[in-house]
Amino acid sequence: MNPAAPRPEAPGAPEPSRPARPPHAVVELLERSRALTTPALRAAVGRLAPPMDTVAAYHFGWIDAQGRPTDADSGKAVRPALALLSAEAAGAAPEVGVPGAVAVELVHNFSLLHDDLMDGDEQRRHRDTVWKVHGPAQAILVGDALFALASEIILDGDDAHAARAARRLAAASRQLIDGQAQDIAFEHRERVTVAECLAMEGNKTGALLAFAASIGAVLGGADDALADALDAYGRHLGLAFQAVDDLLGIWGDPRSTGKLTWSDLRQRKKSLPVVAAMAAEGPAAARLTALLTADVKKSREEFEDFDEAEFAARAELIDEAGGRRWTADEARRQYDIAIDALESVTLPAATRRRLTELADFVVVRSK
Amino acid sequence: MNPAAPRPEAPGAPEPSRPARPPHAVVELLERSRALTTPALRAAVGRLAPPMDTVAAYHFGWIDAQGRPTDADSGKAVRPALALLSAEAAGAAPEVGVPGAVAVELVHNFSLLHDDLMDGDEQRRHRDTVWKVHGPAQAILVGDALFALASEIILDGDDAHAARAARRLAAASRQLIDGQAQDIAFEHRERVTVAECLAMEGNKTGALLAFAASIGAVLGGADDALADALDAYGRHLGLAFQAVDDLLGIWGDPRSTGKLTWSDLRQRKKSLPVVAAMAAEGPAAARLTALLTADVKKSREEFEDFDEAEFAARAELIDEAGGRRWTADEARRQYDIAIDALESVTLPAATRRRLTELADFVVVRSK
Repeated sequence: MNPAAPRPEAPGAPEPSRPARPPHAVVELLERSRALTTPALRAAVGRLAPPMDTVAAYHFGWIDAQGRPTDADSGKAVRPALALLSAEAAGAAPEVGVPGAVAVELVHNFSLLHDDLMDGDEQRRHRDTVWKVHGPAQAILVGDALFALASEIILDGDDAHAARAARRLAAASRQLIDGQAQDIAFEHRERVTVAECLAMEGNKTGALLAFAASIGAVLGGADDALADALDAYGRHLGLAFQAVDDLLGIWGDPRSTGKLTWSDLRQRKKSLPVVAAMAAEGPAAARLTALLTADVKKSREEFEDFDEAEFAARAELIDEAGGRRWTADEARRQYDIAIDALESVTLPAATRRRLTELADFVVVRSK
Repeated sequence: MNPAAPRPEAPGAPEPSRPARPPHAVVELLERSRALTTPALRAAVGRLAPPMDTVAAYHFGWIDAQGRPTDADSGKAVRPALALLSAEAAGAAPEVGVPGAVAVELVHNFSLLHDDLMDGDEQRRHRDTVWKVHGPAQAILVGDALFALASEIILDGDDAHAARAARRLAAASRQLIDGQAQDIAFEHRERVTVAECLAMEGNKTGALLAFAASIGAVLGGADDALADALDAYGRHLGLAFQAVDDLLGIWGDPRSTGKLTWSDLRQRKKSLPVVAAMAAEGPAAARLTALLTADVKKSREEFEDFDEAEFAARAELIDEAGGRRWTADEARRQYDIAIDALESVTLPAATRRRLTELADFVVVRSK
């Protein structure tokens, strides 16, 4: 195969991009979630001491670097939507899930602020990152403040629910941090197994989606069986989501990802397509392994001097060794486990349908 | 006065260093606190995913940079001692305060890890800081992990106490972060009022000592009146402690502080002696203000080229304008408020005595 061929449409490979326009029901769900969550999120961020409130507002895309109001893309609001559906799953009003939705957004954005600094990423959603605009100290401090704020918000209810909710938040946050630590460590290791990669992604992405999907139910007074089923749904949905993200991290279109081409390869990420390809048999896997093993020994500067063709060659070998196909299949497997997790519990029919539609949207399934 | 005169013994100035050997009762109290807290703290840190557990162990002084066990100075354990005394204040066994003691140590060390990186400090307690040894990413990650761990530990009890304890932890943590944000912002401002500086120090130092002094009581089931009185004791003790620290930050002996001479002046910190001197009348205050106002406009590099005499001149002007004397008096005023806060509540006599002895130790009072 020719590395110069149009990448997303490579023969035999599943379409890795998410649909530009989600179905109507999902659009409505996400809009409702944003409408309920954003005012509470803005109020929470407004509690921060200056200049952290301004820096956070820039990060969330509410103002530009000069402090003028903007309407930048602030993400799809999948996590808040999960938190509100989760309250409905427990028979409560979606509003009951709002503190959970706010907490999950705060923790997610705490991790983005710190990760962008650690990874040296200068752009996120086509905008300069906080450390680039306001300096590393503000990225650290505002991240810390959002993390502390998440605990405050989740503890704002009555004692019994608050303690249960805060325990789940603390556990999910620590898994998230563990996942980031593993992700960074893997960049410097020659070999990472598929199991290690899945464990890392379960921490880095699965834990917070598990929290989002269960927190509304916890705040609504659900028993552990329901909360745990929703947690499992969110965790596997997170793994499916991350598998799709890993495909986009290599083959995604920079115009829609807002990142450089071959973004994850430039950072030497040991993402799922990479580790699956390295674990495969055959000449493509062997050539890939030889190249990536040598890459680990290079300095960051040497690595950044690579031209497009060198990354394209690696991407092509990953594809040829089956890493791309395996990852697309894994997204589907994790999606199926997520949906199955809901089978064991009683849910309002409309909530079950919405949870499924949201999962369909998150994971573009290969036909 | 001659700037070359021996600094700590400058005539008319209070002795700013803490006693090398605390009184026997305090030694015993601190040793008991360390003995109760350290195993629980080590167990908590042991929960971290590699390599964060090792990095944290280095930070706490349990191992050296090569991973060999060490017995480095890991601090005086005043905060854990407060947490255990706090449990006794509520009529509970000191052991009841242990999760609080561990949480306060975790949050304190989370803030040290991040502050050292933000401030570019290469040394702490005569050892290289974590970002210097293990890199900035590990300093950020391990700080985050310790912060998350603090919530986990404090939430490990029954629901009612756990939620109250976690609320106090979240509030104290956010004040701590606000204080650090203010401290950094002040370095770049020409003028900071004494009131602003006290508010910053109340956040940066007072909040966590207030948490330490009240958390044991909360875990022991104390009512809000007792917890709030202990909180006030801790907050003002923290302000007294910080006033002494601000004196040490300018006039402390590098051999005992482990920092450079004139440490806070090198960082352009607007600490209490500085802002009190700038707020004073007279020629020394005016000359100081002119110098420091010009300093703010200098680049970090220009500033680091200053020789000893330039810092000595600033320190001398601060002393001459009365900033040193005012800060020593302020330490005493805050100490008195701390002790008064305990007057309104019923405490076991032995606990009241120990809280007073600990305050005496923390704040060296000028005679």
